[in-house]
Amino acid sequence: MLMIPGPVQVHGRILRAMSRQMVGHRGKKFSEIMKYCVDGLKELFGTDGDVYIISGSGTAGLEAAIASFSGVKRITCVDNGKFGDRLGRIASRCTDTDVVRFEWGKPVDLEAVERSLAEGSEALAFVHNETSTAMLNPAKELAKLAKKYDCLVIMDAITSVGGDEVRMDEWGVDVAIVGSQKCLGIPPGLAAVAVSEKAWEYYSEKCPFYLDLAAYRKKSRDYQTPYTPAVSLFFALEEAIRMIKEEGLENRIRRHRILSKAVRAWAGEAGLELFPEPDEISSYSNTVTAIKLPEGVGDKDLRGTLLNEYGITVSGGQEHLKGKIFRIGNMGNVGKREIVTTLAAIEDVLSRFNACKPGLYAAFEVLREL
Amino acid sequence: MLMIPGPVQVHGRILRAMSRQMVGHRGKKFSEIMKYCVDGLKELFGTDGDVYIISGSGTAGLEAAIASFSGVKRITCVDNGKFGDRLGRIASRCTDTDVVRFEWGKPVDLEAVERSLAEGSEALAFVHNETSTAMLNPAKELAKLAKKYDCLVIMDAITSVGGDEVRMDEWGVDVAIVGSQKCLGIPPGLAAVAVSEKAWEYYSEKCPFYLDLAAYRKKSRDYQTPYTPAVSLFFALEEAIRMIKEEGLENRIRRHRILSKAVRAWAGEAGLELFPEPDEISSYSNTVTAIKLPEGVGDKDLRGTLLNEYGITVSGGQEHLKGKIFRIGNMGNVGKREIVTTLAAIEDVLSRFNACKPGLYAAFEVLREL
Repeated sequence: MLMIPGPVQVHGRILRAMSRQMVGHRGKKFSEIMKYCVDGLKELFGTDGDVYIISGSGTAGLEAAIASFSGVKRITCVDNGKFGDRLGRIASRCTDTDVVRFEWGKPVDLEAVERSLAEGSEALAFVHNETSTAMLNPAKELAKLAKKYDCLVIMDAITSVGGDEVRMDEWGVDVAIVGSQKCLGIPPGLAAVAVSEKAWEYYSEKCPFYLDLAAYRKKSRDYQTPYTPAVSLFFALEEAIRMIKEEGLENRIRRHRILSKAVRAWAGEAGLELFPEPDEISSYSNTVTAIKLPEGVGDKDLRGTLLNEYGITVSGGQEHLKGKIFRIGNMGNVGKREIVTTLAAIEDVLSRFNACKPGLYAAFEVLREL
Repeated sequence: MLMIPGPVQVHGRILRAMSRQMVGHRGKKFSEIMKYCVDGLKELFGTDGDVYIISGSGTAGLEAAIASFSGVKRITCVDNGKFGDRLGRIASRCTDTDVVRFEWGKPVDLEAVERSLAEGSEALAFVHNETSTAMLNPAKELAKLAKKYDCLVIMDAITSVGGDEVRMDEWGVDVAIVGSQKCLGIPPGLAAVAVSEKAWEYYSEKCPFYLDLAAYRKKSRDYQTPYTPAVSLFFALEEAIRMIKEEGLENRIRRHRILSKAVRAWAGEAGLELFPEPDEISSYSNTVTAIKLPEGVGDKDLRGTLLNEYGITVSGGQEHLKGKIFRIGNMGNVGKREIVTTLAAIEDVLSRFNACKPGLYAAFEVLREL
């Protein structure tokens, strides 16, 4: 049982969709599937703009977004976690880049971001839902600030689209990226990039060949891709979007919020400490929760035992957070049962170290809101 | 029924493998699968070097190969078809590029290639099996020539590995690329790049972030990937390699050769003209056959009717060959039945235009060699 912030456990309907026989990627059938996926994704992104689907991981989507629109004099990247750091690394291969760094898990300071923008940036890139620290950054406020300086706004929404509220057009986000193996609930291997008309003013043909969004744009008119797409993952995406429509996007977001709220309520009751420290404009992530490992409990003690005894995988910390935190994802088609199972199993393991108190009742209470 | 040069019809065993539940991509189970795939691919590439698996199309693999090793002063690209042309387009985004052009379907002139190499190239890139024209280029001879000038040799083997003979180490090829949806017989979405030690002398960190093979190399020591891999396609690849081992690589290559020979024999008997004009060092492709559309028969007349009446998809021509040729793939796990079905159906359609003679018996005779 995968309770990590992607790849997520995949629903049987979606797994079965993937076992369908291939169709030619230049034929009518594929175009129909692609149209259905693109239209569905537009709703999830909250945009009337274009959506391009790339065969590759979320990182491929990020690079496509940043490199294709790197015709900017300078880009400001906000880094308060591993994926913010990655934005900076990608951007610095393309154009003059200023990375505004904050301690991981600490909120973004808008004034510091503004100082960077004021120094001549033409674009701002930030991560919406930072999974490495389980914090939700203030997308609306960051986009508003960027617009003050007439900057292009690029948002890594890899782990929020389909599980949390994303309103690109309303917020003033020009480019946003989602990954398939997160809140959409399908296996990894696809990324989608939503693009406003304005972004094309900054198009740079010096971007990588495979990730050149101009090629995707050209083919998208016929609902095709420039290079052979991962057809079976499109079958999965089609089924996933069908399931999202059945559930209703609002209900889906509400479910994600309640599930993560239940995890946080449990942690509080169990005497465990949450890792991120959101301020009034940021908040805890609604799709993943990061909790400090109690003193005296090693990463293997917890995660190793969970896997060996319960067959449950939760994530550890990344980079310098290795051995310091663990993370529970609640993305995609996860429900009450999976959350309760995971929390109970963690309690079983931590209680052997006298490292937690009973907290399940706090989770039950929240989960009744579902 | 897909009889195109990729994506190919996928065997039921492989489709079923893809419907397995996700595993974490940082766990032991995934690493075991990846090790099995990498070891299997090394055999198919004919190399003791490293093999990196990228989530993306064959084009992503090509760009990873060319861009990562673009620390060369100049690269010569051989173009006698659409994919040769693509090599040149990718290379010219990375470094000084000289494209040696030949008419599509015409053989490579080694002297012309040598003249380009002699002008200071440090790398040679060419397509082994050019699917746009169905011609097999002289890999051994080209690699030998490149070595004379101490050039790095990059070979697009996207549609030959797993279906035709590829012996990287023996031929002196430093870097080669395969795509998943061709002779390996799995759905599209993975590419693998085989890399010799020598290639790293020309490593350039100015390559794209997602396709930077140094990141893949670093993670490959633990049989992991730098970015979330398309897990379900790895399940497919594992099963495909298992099937290749069961059949035996030699038998598999022999099967591909006999199937394509049968198509050519049929075409000859039916009075149809093959498109490519190989010389003594090149040859007809063993994995795809390109045939000129008889006069008075349009692309839709043939391919449209085949699809509507028989549910069979064959490929048309690409770029300026649109409406001039059609192409029949025999890649992956295709057998005698699929070939005979396809040829019979084509005969049915073409004979309505008085555009062919009965040719099936010529195919039967060749197919008895299987």
